[in-house]
Parts: sequence; C-alpha cells; structure tokens
Amino acid sequence: MTDYVQRAAAVLEKINELAAISEDATGLTRTFGTDAFLAGRRRVQDWMELAGLQTRVDAIGNVRARFVSPNAGAKTFVIASHIDTVVNAGKFDGPMGVVMGLDLVTRLVESGKPLPFHIELIAFSDEEGVRFHTTYLGSKVIAGSFDNALLDKKDAFGMTLTEVLQRMGSTITDLPSDALAPADWLGYFEIHIEQGPVLYERHVPVAVVTAIAGQKRVEITFTGMAGHAGTVPMAMRQDALCAAAGFVLAVEQFALTHKDNLVATVGKLTVVNAASNVIPGEVSCSLDVRSNDADLLETTYLALHELAISIGANRPIRVNWNLIQETAPVLCDTGLTTVLAKSIQESGYDVIPLVSGAGHDGVPISQVSPIAMLFVRCYKGISHNPLEDVELADMAAALRVADTFLDSLIEQYP
Amino acid sequence: MTDYVQRAAAVLEKINELAAISEDATGLTRTFGTDAFLAGRRRVQDWMELAGLQTRVDAIGNVRARFVSPNAGAKTFVIASHIDTVVNAGKFDGPMGVVMGLDLVTRLVESGKPLPFHIELIAFSDEEGVRFHTTYLGSKVIAGSFDNALLDKKDAFGMTLTEVLQRMGSTITDLPSDALAPADWLGYFEIHIEQGPVLYERHVPVAVVTAIAGQKRVEITFTGMAGHAGTVPMAMRQDALCAAAGFVLAVEQFALTHKDNLVATVGKLTVVNAASNVIPGEVSCSLDVRSNDADLLETTYLALHELAISIGANRPIRVNWNLIQETAPVLCDTGLTTVLAKSIQESGYDVIPLVSGAGHDGVPISQVSPIAMLFVRCYKGISHNPLEDVELADMAAALRVADTFLDSLIEQYP
Repeated sequence: MTDYVQRAAAVLEKINELAAISEDATGLTRTFGTDAFLAGRRRVQDWMELAGLQTRVDAIGNVRARFVSPNAGAKTFVIASHIDTVVNAGKFDGPMGVVMGLDLVTRLVESGKPLPFHIELIAFSDEEGVRFHTTYLGSKVIAGSFDNALLDKKDAFGMTLTEVLQRMGSTITDLPSDALAPADWLGYFEIHIEQGPVLYERHVPVAVVTAIAGQKRVEITFTGMAGHAGTVPMAMRQDALCAAAGFVLAVEQFALTHKDNLVATVGKLTVVNAASNVIPGEVSCSLDVRSNDADLLETTYLALHELAISIGANRPIRVNWNLIQETAPVLCDTGLTTVLAKSIQESGYDVIPLVSGAGHDGVPISQVSPIAMLFVRCYKGISHNPLEDVELADMAAALRVADTFLDSLIEQYP
Repeated sequence: MTDYVQRAAAVLEKINELAAISEDATGLTRTFGTDAFLAGRRRVQDWMELAGLQTRVDAIGNVRARFVSPNAGAKTFVIASHIDTVVNAGKFDGPMGVVMGLDLVTRLVESGKPLPFHIELIAFSDEEGVRFHTTYLGSKVIAGSFDNALLDKKDAFGMTLTEVLQRMGSTITDLPSDALAPADWLGYFEIHIEQGPVLYERHVPVAVVTAIAGQKRVEITFTGMAGHAGTVPMAMRQDALCAAAGFVLAVEQFALTHKDNLVATVGKLTVVNAASNVIPGEVSCSLDVRSNDADLLETTYLALHELAISIGANRPIRVNWNLIQETAPVLCDTGLTTVLAKSIQESGYDVIPLVSGAGHDGVPISQVSPIAMLFVRCYKGISHNPLEDVELADMAAALRVADTFLDSLIEQYP
C-alpha cells in the first residue's frame, strides 16, 4: 500500500527547493528566461534524470522527459504543468503539477511494468506570460500553434523573445519540430491548484475540471479634462475618475446578476498624471471577463461596452475601448474527465465538477488533444500571492486520484 | 496715458523667458532648489536690479527687492508671488505675479516720487511644495511662521531641506531674522491667475478675491482581499477597487449637493500590486475638500468619513482614514479689498468677488498682515498644465487695476 502522505511530503520538499530559486532575495519571482528561471529548470531536469528518464530542453525552453513504451507505434500521453511564475508568486501554482507529475511517472518507472503508450512529462517554460505579455509560449510550441510573430515581442528592457531564446542557448529554427504531431497525442493531464475558494469553502480536497473559461481582456480609457481641484466648480467638471468609478461599479453589478457563469474584474486602474490637487483628466483601466458559456461571454462583453459608452456620454467623458485579448471557452474531454471523476470517487472523495476561471496550458493543447485537469484545494483560494498554500493531505489525495487515473488509462489502452 | 498693452507685452516677454528655464527640455518644471530654479531666480534678480531696486536673496531662497520710502518709520507693503512651479507646469502660475509686481514697482520708481511707505517685492522660492510635500516655505519665512522641523524633510532622493538650502548657499540660522516683523506690515498684495473657469465663462478679465478656501487633505486606504480574477466567484469577493469606486462617486455626489460653497476631489487613486487578472486587494486614494465656509468644511469632512466607513462596512472592506493636512479658510482684508474692488470698477470692469479654491502665499501672510489678491482670467480655467494661458488684454487690465490700487493706497497713507 502506497504511503501517499510520504510521497506528498517528498513532493513538497521539491516544491520548497524550487521556491528558493528566485529573481529576488525576499519573495518568489521566476519569470521566463531569467537566471533564476534557468537555475530552476536545471534543478527540475536533474530530478527527472535522477528518476531514470531521458530528458531534453526544447527550443522554447520546456524541459521534456520521456518514459517510452516498448509499443513503438503507441501514442503519447502528456503530463505537464509550468515552472515559470508571476511576480511575487506563490510556490504551488505550476511547480506542484510538474513535481507531482514526476512523482506519478516515477511510480510507473519503478513498477518495472512496460507501458502500453508513451508518457511525456513536460515542465512548460512560460505559462504566466509575465515577461512578454503573452500566453502559453511553452505549450503553444508543443501544440504546434506557436506563431513566429511572437519572436519579435520585447520585454520591459527591450530584449526580444528571439534574443532571450538565443541567450538560453535555443536554436530558433527548431521551434516547429518541437511540436508533438497531432496524430501522436493520446491525451493531456495536468494537476494544478484551484486558485479559487470553492474547494476550500466546500471542504473537499480535489475537483475535476469540466471546462476552462473563455476570456476577454479590454483596455478602456476615460478622457475628460484635468483641472485644479480647488478652483473648478463641481458643476463644470469633466472628471475621468468619476466616470471610471461608475464603470467599475457597473461591471460588478452586471457580473453579480450572472454570478453562476460569469466573473468580471477591473484589476488595473491608473489615473494619468495623478495628484491629490488635480481633477483626473484621464483614467485607464482593464476589464477581464470570463465565462464557460461562449454566448454569455459575448453578450456580457457587448453590454459592458454599451455601459461604458453611456456612462461617458452622460458626463461627458470620451471613452476609448480596446479589446486586447480573447480566448474561447475550452471543454475538457468527456472520456478522460469521466475516468478522472471515477478515480476521484474510487479514492473516496466527492466529485465536484469545476470550471476553471484561470487559463491553463490545456487551452492551446485542447486544439490537438483531449485534455483533463485535476484541481487541488488551496488555502482560502489564494493564489498569485506568497500566502498560496496547499495541505499535505490534499496533495496526498491528488496523488492517490492521479495514480488511479493513470492506472485506469493504462488498463483501458486500447 | 500709459500704454497697458505695451507693458503687458513686456511682462509676457519676461514670463516667456522664465518659462524657457526648466529642469527638462520639453516641458516647464522648475521646482525648489534645482539648477533650473537657481537659474530662474538669478534671472528675476537681474531684472529687479536692472529696474534700480536693491535686492537680496534670503535664507529660504526668496528674492527680495526693496523700494525704500524716505519716511524711515513707515511700514512695508509687500507685493509678491512665487517662481517655483509644479511638474509639467504652465508658465503663468506664480511668475506672472512676480513679473507684474516688478512692472508695477518700476512705474513707481520711474515716477521719481518718494513713497510714503516702503515696498518690498518678493519672488517666493517655494509655494507649490512639490519637492518636499510642504506648503509655502518661502512665505512662511517672511511671515515668521517657518517651523524648523521642516528642515529635516527629505525629497524623493533623500536630500533634506537643510542640505538643499546649504547647496543653495543659505545660512540656515538666518531663517528667523528673514521674517518681516509683525509691526512692520502695511499689507500684502498678489496678482495671480484664477486657475479656475469662472472669469472665462463670465467674460470678465479680473476678479477681487474675498477669501482663500480652507482645505482638508485625506489619505484613505481600502483593504479587501486580492484574488485571481478568474477563479473567485463574484459573491465571494472583497474587491477594494469596488469600495473605492463607491467612495469616489459618493464624494462627487455630496459635493454636488453643496456646490456653491464646496469642492471635493479624489485626484489620486492607486491599486496596489495591480494586474488585469487580479482582484484588487488594496486601493489607496486621496481626498481634497475645500470651502470658504469653515463649518461646511468640517461637516463635509465628517460626513465623507462616515460614508467611507459605511461603504467599507457593507462589503466588507477595511477602511483606513488619515487626515494629512488642513488649513482654515482665510479672509482677505476688507479695507484693502474694498480699495481693490473700487480700482476694478474705476478701470471699467465688472467687480466679481471670488473665493480662491487654490491655496496661496496669502494664507501664512494673513496671520501677520492684511492681504488682498487680484485674479486674472486664464484660458478655460486651465492651470498646472502647459495649456495654461492668459490673454495680453487681460494682463493689461490687471496692470491698470493694480496701478489704480497702488495709487489709491499711496494717496490714502496714513
């Protein structure tokens, strides 16, 4: 009988080791291509090799380890997550999935049984997209959907993605050949913290993900007229912040009326040339809308655009609306998800189906492969924050469920 | 008959010369103690000397020129404004009053007539308070209310006021003796742009200031809980920006209901660790409330504090409220203001009494001297902005009114 708590403790030890590798001395920040990133990646590759796996680093900087089936014509099942982080990150978002994946594959290696299909364990190099304001650089290469136009993107210091990749020792022209051919995919599986509070509130350690929400990101600018805060009478003002404040509340109100299938957030708001004694003349803000329902996402987007325009027209304030990113909702594979839900049940836990509001590497992968995801409860749902935490018992639960899941897949193939 | 347009043109030429002396190549920024400030001050001092006045620079960096009366026991009438600017400033706010003052005194010097009282023309070194987040450094020294604790204040680069003064060549211990003794004050007069839109809207070139509004500045922090914008359901959020937005609108609404005697502004608003995909966990903002009515100022302050607390309590969001600065309303001197209003009338203009919503050096001076201020119309009321502009004809009008005002004072003395 496996001691899952012991395995979880070993996983946590590795997570802590990785968390100590950071760009800054105090918190955890390990963004794509930095020296800290390279050191963290090296550590992960070492672990994979110690487990007896063949490893390589591909052109986008993913670490890839293969456990090869003697069945030469077999397809490949990918287990993966990412090792880059946001700024001032928590230590579980990404690394937990990679280190758990290694633990799962190690058990299969140590069992000595031949696999009916290949397994590829991948540590994606860039999921958070912090450095280049991109999404899924690592998994797009694997999925064969990497767009070479991304190579010209520049980071905050003016360095292009091409330059960063070259500094990492990559051969740019290898990028296309690093994709897994669509015919080779058997499936994709990722373990990740929930990053939300539902499991925490419902006292359940894991959840099966049914979909990854579609998302629209908008940048909005409200332009009025700056003026002296002491001398422009109230009735003569065109205060851009008041317009933006009206919009923030309207967004919240709208999302609350559709709260079962929708979240909407103004996360950034900047008063241009702000001073306490100046009436704000220009305010820019972000809007992030997500839903698993493509129709609701679209109608919400249109309704909030209408609201912004009408708030502006009533003051009057000029409104500039700029859609900067959108992804469609992605459904997890019914077949894989059914097996995963059954594994949860067999492990003795309630099956809670969840929509992921956060994006994940499964989004680009879903274009070429069936995908499944297992969410693990995290403390109060806190993520992208040093307070991010996962109980050892919950990691043990996830390992138990994932063992069962993989054993079922191995048994069923084909 | 004086050609006021010609005199205004000469004034404008000097204003333009001063505006070319800036810390940066593109806009106008001349904050206290910088090399640009010292160069601008040198230019002003040269002009004063060219006009035949005795000048000196005092320990806080004010340029002071005296036109001495043969009447040795006479009091001193001060004409002044400031030569420091905000960041990315307009060219009239401050310098116009100094350069016009010089023009007014020059006429008196050139008339060859002895004065019945002394005149001191002062270019204050620091009214805007940008560098040390202070108010009225220059005029506080003149008024004898400079607090030595200010000497330890640090600028953004960690340099103390003491160090800056030493770099300017000042002897710190001279600060107290640079005050004009209370018994020596005859009065104080400043010409300044309105910095508001009332004269522009009413098509009148000048106004007599009846009071300088009292002011309270508050810093408020709303603290909720940061979270992932995709994963925290709407009903489980503690969004600090939504609370702050509610406060911004409540401030506007409250001020609109008292709009004849009150302005209130949230000029700064910062989302801490903002990201488009993070629910704001902490938002700080400023509040600036001004009124000429001390009671209304106080009741407004208390009411807005109540509002902030109740907005926080309803969400729930923690609210931290911190009063950082307050000044009481200051009344202009009835005697001087009556003479000034009569001078406006005699010059052929409608007399418009205005409350100054902006603070001015008259605030500290009012503690030791009767004060009077003349406002000049500016383009659309725009100030603290490169678009700040004043018509030549309006400067001519102000010179005409001020000539009449000074002649009346001379005639009436004692």
